Amino acid sequence: MATEIPATALQLRSLVTADGTVRLSLDMVAVPEPGPDEVLVRVEAAPINPSDLGMLLAGADVTAAVTSGPADRPVVIAPLSDGAMRAAAARAGLPMPVGNEGAGTVVAAGSSAAAAALLGKTVALAGGGMYAEYRCAHAAFCMPLPAGTPAADGASSFVNPLTALGMLETMRLENHSALVHTAAASNLGQMLNRLCIEERVPLVNVVRRAEQADLLRSAGATHVCNSSSAQFMTELTAAVSATGATLAFDATGGGRLAGQILTCMEAAASATAEGYSRYGSTVHKQVYIYGSLDRSPTELARNFGMAWGVGGWLLTPFLQKIGLERMAQLRDRVAAGLTTTFASSYTDQISLAGALQLDIRAAYGRMATGSKHLIVPTAGK
Amino acid sequence: MATEIPATALQLRSLVTADGTVRLSLDMVAVPEPGPDEVLVRVEAAPINPSDLGMLLAGADVTAAVTSGPADRPVVIAPLSDGAMRAAAARAGLPMPVGNEGAGTVVAAGSSAAAAALLGKTVALAGGGMYAEYRCAHAAFCMPLPAGTPAADGASSFVNPLTALGMLETMRLENHSALVHTAAASNLGQMLNRLCIEERVPLVNVVRRAEQADLLRSAGATHVCNSSSAQFMTELTAAVSATGATLAFDATGGGRLAGQILTCMEAAASATAEGYSRYGSTVHKQVYIYGSLDRSPTELARNFGMAWGVGGWLLTPFLQKIGLERMAQLRDRVAAGLTTTFASSYTDQISLAGALQLDIRAAYGRMATGSKHLIVPTAGK
Repeated sequence: MATEIPATALQLRSLVTADGTVRLSLDMVAVPEPGPDEVLVRVEAAPINPSDLGMLLAGADVTAAVTSGPADRPVVIAPLSDGAMRAAAARAGLPMPVGNEGAGTVVAAGSSAAAAALLGKTVALAGGGMYAEYRCAHAAFCMPLPAGTPAADGASSFVNPLTALGMLETMRLENHSALVHTAAASNLGQMLNRLCIEERVPLVNVVRRAEQADLLRSAGATHVCNSSSAQFMTELTAAVSATGATLAFDATGGGRLAGQILTCMEAAASATAEGYSRYGSTVHKQVYIYGSLDRSPTELARNFGMAWGVGGWLLTPFLQKIGLERMAQLRDRVAAGLTTTFASSYTDQISLAGALQLDIRAAYGRMATGSKHLIVPTAGK
Repeated sequence: MATEIPATALQLRSLVTADGTVRLSLDMVAVPEPGPDEVLVRVEAAPINPSDLGMLLAGADVTAAVTSGPADRPVVIAPLSDGAMRAAAARAGLPMPVGNEGAGTVVAAGSSAAAAALLGKTVALAGGGMYAEYRCAHAAFCMPLPAGTPAADGASSFVNPLTALGMLETMRLENHSALVHTAAASNLGQMLNRLCIEERVPLVNVVRRAEQADLLRSAGATHVCNSSSAQFMTELTAAVSATGATLAFDATGGGRLAGQILTCMEAAASATAEGYSRYGSTVHKQVYIYGSLDRSPTELARNFGMAWGVGGWLLTPFLQKIGLERMAQLRDRVAAGLTTTFASSYTDQISLAGALQLDIRAAYGRMATGSKHLIVPTAGK
């Protein structure tokens, strides 16, 4: 497994400039020598998740971007609105590596037993900076893939699988027994649907288009509600009643959807309540916002009594909360189901330079369900 | 203490009709005979709290109300919007007694020792239906007032004092160390200000007008922010930084205020954070909405990272959560401070019929800070 390791290699970076733009470029950076407990991974596959776009684009409008430079080293510059600039002020002037997760081959290892044992193996890892030809990482953060697994199959081993498992964990920790999930036709949504079927957890899938509903039903989903239906509120209330769902995970964040879910949960709870209380039902209804596909403000009509909560949900602090031991159990479960329950599918494989090309940027900038890109930094090498 | 008890007496009731109106009237109802563990209280004082208006008005626009009937038994009819009617559907056709709390004299008692011991005493009680000449209640729910205390001084012994104490309890239970409070010049707000000064808990008072800021400062408040100031966000961020407040109680509910508080808390947290995270600070920021002075939707710009929550907060379930023993401790504390920390002040004393008069309805319908009415059912008797 002798591999020639270059002294420098490409890394995709995102830089917010003081004059209010975001600048994306492929920079030639030094390939680090792994420390005793570290390994050097040649990155062979890294997905573009919605959760990567914040770091990558910093809230810029990609449709206003301008590209320059050679095709294999393009530079993209896009303007930031005043609001986006304020939000990104803390990172101005700091070139940020991008890419939460990926997989590749360990081509060099430190002297420790744990590191040395990984040499030559295909591993998945998370922790940022994966849109690069090489990534140096602590051995403990690498998950060896089952022998023969292609890197592409392990590239999405963390964000979506642990998020789906984290939703179920949260449901149990907070004493709910069913879930509502929005943007349910996404890769994550399809994964959650498979997981809930396996675990016999009732799931209400909320989608925006009829073909997305068909997709989920053909994958075995029982409850699918289309938010563009004229009867959406009635249908969602019926599904919430049937499942008893009092917890929702919302990937859209903005607009009225989170509030509509609470309204339907309250209607379902009131239908079985005894007597009238002007404060609404005593059933606690919770929506966690874990994404921001819709960047507009969240609008809550508050017509759902007083027993409710809306809040942010983020994977990393959740994993810290449940602790290392439980997290290791979840990771083992992911490894066992990488090509089944936790499989991801991609519409395109692109190079690092390809990730900066106009049409591809536009596609992932839309964050449309059904379009998902896998960066293959070794493409064309 | 011989008192002639009539067979029937007046009770203020609010009825949502099937044709979409709310009807307020003084009905002559039977005065109940107390059971063994009960007492009959002649109500002598009952405040109109913002929390009473939902049951009383059912969301009707009081400015469109029509009054008929004699001056001492007026009937008020006000139209309900479609939205208000949907929200009130569960109470349509049921005449609802109104009035969360009040005080009066025990004029008859059941045979149990606990009930008999209260005969002739002035007691405060909560539990609804206090806008009436008589109220029958379980002896355990009555709080005897210190000898010589006028009923008016004990009329507001529950809702505001226990809410103020409940906010501090919540702060400690959820590991915060300072508070933000909106509508801070209200009776409740002034009470919370006195309580926080006593307990040395840093408090950020948010008001809407300069004279309200003056009122609170003259009562010893250190941090007062006026939301109508052009520098409100800067001033609130500075006050949140100075106090370390990561918990707010918001009485307004609608509009952008709850979100603005989170934005300022995040700005304060980010100022001391090390390094940049696109998910914002790791400090959990919480706003509890406990009122709805602004009935418009809650609008959250979500420019405050991912570690945040917004939710409903209601006194009764909170008291159930802390348990009877702790609640009794809080009640004792209220009784000891009725004319000091927990004193209320009223702009007007009115009769039951007066509560239905146009100008008075308009005043409490505005829910304006600085205007608070006390119903005295024995007035003119």
